[in-house]
Amino acid sequence: MAEKKQQMWRRHDRVLALHTPVFDIARYRAVPPEGSAVTGGEVPRYVIEAPDWVNIIALTADERVVMIEQYRAGTDDLTLEIPGGMVDPGEDPAQAAARELYEETGYTAESLLHIGSIAPNPAIQSNHCHSFVARGLSAGAQALGEGEDISLRLMPLDEARQAVVSGRVTHALVVVAFHFFAARGA
Amino acid sequence: MAEKKQQMWRRHDRVLALHTPVFDIARYRAVPPEGSAVTGGEVPRYVIEAPDWVNIIALTADERVVMIEQYRAGTDDLTLEIPGGMVDPGEDPAQAAARELYEETGYTAESLLHIGSIAPNPAIQSNHCHSFVARGLSAGAQALGEGEDISLRLMPLDEARQAVVSGRVTHALVVVAFHFFAARGA
Repeated sequence: MAEKKQQMWRRHDRVLALHTPVFDIARYRAVPPEGSAVTGGEVPRYVIEAPDWVNIIALTADERVVMIEQYRAGTDDLTLEIPGGMVDPGEDPAQAAARELYEETGYTAESLLHIGSIAPNPAIQSNHCHSFVARGLSAGAQALGEGEDISLRLMPLDEARQAVVSGRVTHALVVVAFHFFAARGA
Repeated sequence: MAEKKQQMWRRHDRVLALHTPVFDIARYRAVPPEGSAVTGGEVPRYVIEAPDWVNIIALTADERVVMIEQYRAGTDDLTLEIPGGMVDPGEDPAQAAARELYEETGYTAESLLHIGSIAPNPAIQSNHCHSFVARGLSAGAQALGEGEDISLRLMPLDEARQAVVSGRVTHALVVVAFHFFAARGA
């Protein structure tokens, strides 16, 4: 099969369509490269714009993973996840990972290792999610924000990996974090 | 550490905040369970509501994967992905997978195997993505929709897997599809 070289479009004329506390929705004009034979030509594209995100596989000295359970309004269900959240203005991803780990679980970590970054959805979402492994944990009290209600579960690493494989873990970005972890042999 | 049982919140009073061709944004009131000590109490939650999605690892007789390259407005970049798209009204996910595979690549498949489903983001997104493996392929012409501009690359399976591990594949839901594929030994 002949393989054509894919060409770069460009997006223009950002218009803010909706602001929320967690993401904005922007509308762009997407413009095909000159000479493109694409039908439809310029098309509006809506993009979910959010700060980058982080998530953290935090391991205790006896190789248990600090898992969290919380209500998630997107799927209207309780989920089993790892800690994570948004990178705040002025933070780098590692700082955000340390802060989110502390706020959501009370743990502080001696080491934070960046194991990979992913685009949650390049089609409609602008940001990236950065995954970390935290070790050398010290337990403390949670520092939850407004409306946060999070329970902790310390789960042996093998059980956590099994929860990812079995589908007990339903969050794509948690699956990706464990993929990065396995790929590094970390 | 004492582990409390996580309790179920509920969401109420859906208000449509924005409609787009690919997703809607809805606002809900999220209500903690009775007796909850959560600070902040009821909070508004914005949810990205979309039809379920599908994606497909399509394998030729000589074990090459039908990869696609396209411009993605979310990250404003060209991406290396597998075929996929939205489940249309009245379709089941397998029908959507067969249709999207055909439209985006021209291939029809003798067999489509469901290998797993995931929530792209339970925190802020309502839908699920269903992954399939397609075999017994017959090549044909693409049937692209308005504004679609997609190039094909037939990539040996080992090279595709390496592209996932190396970070050449940047789309979380494509990584998850290959995770399902590996977990099944499919």
